[in-house]
Amino acid sequence: MAPQSWLPIPAKSPFSLANIPFGIITTPEAPEDPHPAVAIGDHALDLYVFDKNDGFSTLGCIQPHRSVFAQPTLNAFAALPSQIRHYVRTYLQSIFTHTLGSKATLKDNLELQKAALFPLKDVKTHMPMQIGDYTDFYAGSNHAENVSVMFNNSMPPNYTHLPVGYHGRASSVVVSGTPIRRPWGQYLSDPAAEPKVPTFAPCRLFDYELEMGAFVCRENKFGEPIPIADGQAESHIFGVVLMNDWSARDIQGWEMLPLGPFNSKNLGTTISPWIVTIEALEPFLTEGLRNYSQVQRYLDQGKEKNVYDIRLEVDITPKESGKTKTVSNSNAKHLLWSFPQMMAHHTITGCPMRVGDLIGSGTISGDRPGSEGCLLEQSKGGKVAVKLENGEERKFLEDGDTVTFRGVAGDEDGALVGFGECVGTVQPALKF
Amino acid sequence: MAPQSWLPIPAKSPFSLANIPFGIITTPEAPEDPHPAVAIGDHALDLYVFDKNDGFSTLGCIQPHRSVFAQPTLNAFAALPSQIRHYVRTYLQSIFTHTLGSKATLKDNLELQKAALFPLKDVKTHMPMQIGDYTDFYAGSNHAENVSVMFNNSMPPNYTHLPVGYHGRASSVVVSGTPIRRPWGQYLSDPAAEPKVPTFAPCRLFDYELEMGAFVCRENKFGEPIPIADGQAESHIFGVVLMNDWSARDIQGWEMLPLGPFNSKNLGTTISPWIVTIEALEPFLTEGLRNYSQVQRYLDQGKEKNVYDIRLEVDITPKESGKTKTVSNSNAKHLLWSFPQMMAHHTITGCPMRVGDLIGSGTISGDRPGSEGCLLEQSKGGKVAVKLENGEERKFLEDGDTVTFRGVAGDEDGALVGFGECVGTVQPALKF
Repeated sequence: MAPQSWLPIPAKSPFSLANIPFGIITTPEAPEDPHPAVAIGDHALDLYVFDKNDGFSTLGCIQPHRSVFAQPTLNAFAALPSQIRHYVRTYLQSIFTHTLGSKATLKDNLELQKAALFPLKDVKTHMPMQIGDYTDFYAGSNHAENVSVMFNNSMPPNYTHLPVGYHGRASSVVVSGTPIRRPWGQYLSDPAAEPKVPTFAPCRLFDYELEMGAFVCRENKFGEPIPIADGQAESHIFGVVLMNDWSARDIQGWEMLPLGPFNSKNLGTTISPWIVTIEALEPFLTEGLRNYSQVQRYLDQGKEKNVYDIRLEVDITPKESGKTKTVSNSNAKHLLWSFPQMMAHHTITGCPMRVGDLIGSGTISGDRPGSEGCLLEQSKGGKVAVKLENGEERKFLEDGDTVTFRGVAGDEDGALVGFGECVGTVQPALKF
Repeated sequence: MAPQSWLPIPAKSPFSLANIPFGIITTPEAPEDPHPAVAIGDHALDLYVFDKNDGFSTLGCIQPHRSVFAQPTLNAFAALPSQIRHYVRTYLQSIFTHTLGSKATLKDNLELQKAALFPLKDVKTHMPMQIGDYTDFYAGSNHAENVSVMFNNSMPPNYTHLPVGYHGRASSVVVSGTPIRRPWGQYLSDPAAEPKVPTFAPCRLFDYELEMGAFVCRENKFGEPIPIADGQAESHIFGVVLMNDWSARDIQGWEMLPLGPFNSKNLGTTISPWIVTIEALEPFLTEGLRNYSQVQRYLDQGKEKNVYDIRLEVDITPKESGKTKTVSNSNAKHLLWSFPQMMAHHTITGCPMRVGDLIGSGTISGDRPGSEGCLLEQSKGGKVAVKLENGEERKFLEDGDTVTFRGVAGDEDGALVGFGECVGTVQPALKF
């Protein structure tokens, strides 16, 4: 049985004692002052206040410097040696655990509870990291195959040899809850017509993409690749979030040849607020999709279990009806390439990684209907309507639609390791 | 005749009184402490020291806060209202000008000269801005046409309708003088052979790309485009640098379909250290390449003269001989799209720009032999050797080659507005 907490934690909470994800919050006590925090059950522990009240005094001799909890992002905490991060996380687990009475730092200190422990519903979450660079990969091969078939293309010949990816726009990454405006852009109203003269109008084929994102916690020097062997690439990853790579399909179709997606993606990318550490996810390592090509040595991770078994769900909630429909059930394991492989490939040229950099997995689709990671796939390019509640249906997103991703690992009640929600609502396009 | 300075400025100096470019330096006095500076003739004025010694006391009532010169980058200075930046620059011009005896702040203050004015040869230049995001466009249509012909492709149909671009890797942008390591990567030894199985080896087709880069000085909000009308997009640009977008052509060929260039570019991009302000460049505005397509209204700048007449040169200096050959003479006016047009396109989706963001023009080639902006073009895809001095020749870059870009606007001795040099030397690949 999972360890029990003195704090009531709902059995189905994604933030069980086994999780302890890190985020940035503001509280009613300090609404202008973002602090690092962990989520536990229905609560958030403000680590700045906890630390200021000597909450870490019983942690032992290896303590992080107090300044890491006085930052408005988690970059300084993430940049600590992994051993110290590990101590902090297990210490935080212990202070919430019932049986560990000797570490009753918080349990018996009602004043500290009042100062540092807040109901999640009362806190506001913020961007957990200051992102330097953001890269988006394309490692979900079910997605890549579905899209290739749709456009009568074969799979790119490089696909099984390297993790295909592109540099994204860091400034456009926002935290869950931020409204996403339908973009204007250029596209062909009829892609088959000649001559090819674009329209300039609000996007008509607006879509989400179900992804996972990984945050970087260790730098490499300019010119020095990060090796994959012995878990080295893995040691550069702090933790994982859900990610919605909103996509304007019509703009994408017109712009992406020859240099790749640009405006179709930089309109906004949403991440979930709580970073689930790779330590918390380790029990859920599993095998990804099979790669039948011989992988180059710099990408050979030397272990089969290198992706995570995380159940993923996509909800759409239209504004008018307010009725939520779960349109897709996928799993984070449907990837051909792991985050460490992406990291090794990204840096094989000597490209520098910095603390706070974000790496996206690419759209994660299962291999059966109802597990697609985007509407483009699920509606078969806009040909088949996806049924919602209340008789509504969608081929692409409409104004007012709220898209919610959820992800959770584990089966045992009271020991779930989840991400909470990654939410965004589509706002109408501007008027010009 | 151009105004004269009391400080001896060589007639051919790119840093005339008409220029006053901004950079970041360390000096022998403070080798660990980067300070904002301007370049003037053969000297650099340390603005932190100048300010600390009340150098700006006679500037007048509109003064920047002292803290902007106490930063290790120019971001805070660039973020000032343009009027204040303008006052600072004209004031700095005035204190070096012979006839403006009343502003003899520096001329007659030998102690201040000794403290703040350093020979350029004694200072070290550093990254002038902290870059948030870096975007590279493809606006040099002579280059795009040469490359399309080479690969038997037609020009992309979107090319004349929008500035094609891709998100680049900000962390890999380095200042002139930083060695550039030949990257490892995957490529097809014989791109025509089937099946397509890549080699993993050091890049064999290593190249430079001659570009201009523009730095952003004003933010837009998430979801709000920057309009092009009335110089609004232009007002978001602080200044311009030379840029070498080093490119691994073999890696690029294998990786770039379907999502664009990635590892072939993120191995390093070099910029010149002195940011030439758009005020200094304004007299050199000229017409770019003619676009025969009807431009969408959000890209219609409403003026013909929107690019700069800047003469560009490319030198190659092999390590062994040490003999420099100027292999190309181009001009920054050979662009189909201007920086304000790129800015308007980039943000039409609401993509946020931040102070310090960098926008690259794409490779700038002229329309005749000897004006190509990269070796891929000049060697016709590696078929024709480019002659260097001493009987040497190149199809692509070899280890030890130093590539130097220079750019200068204006014809009048003593009034040149130049960039100095953008230099990088190719280091051998790592051994694995």
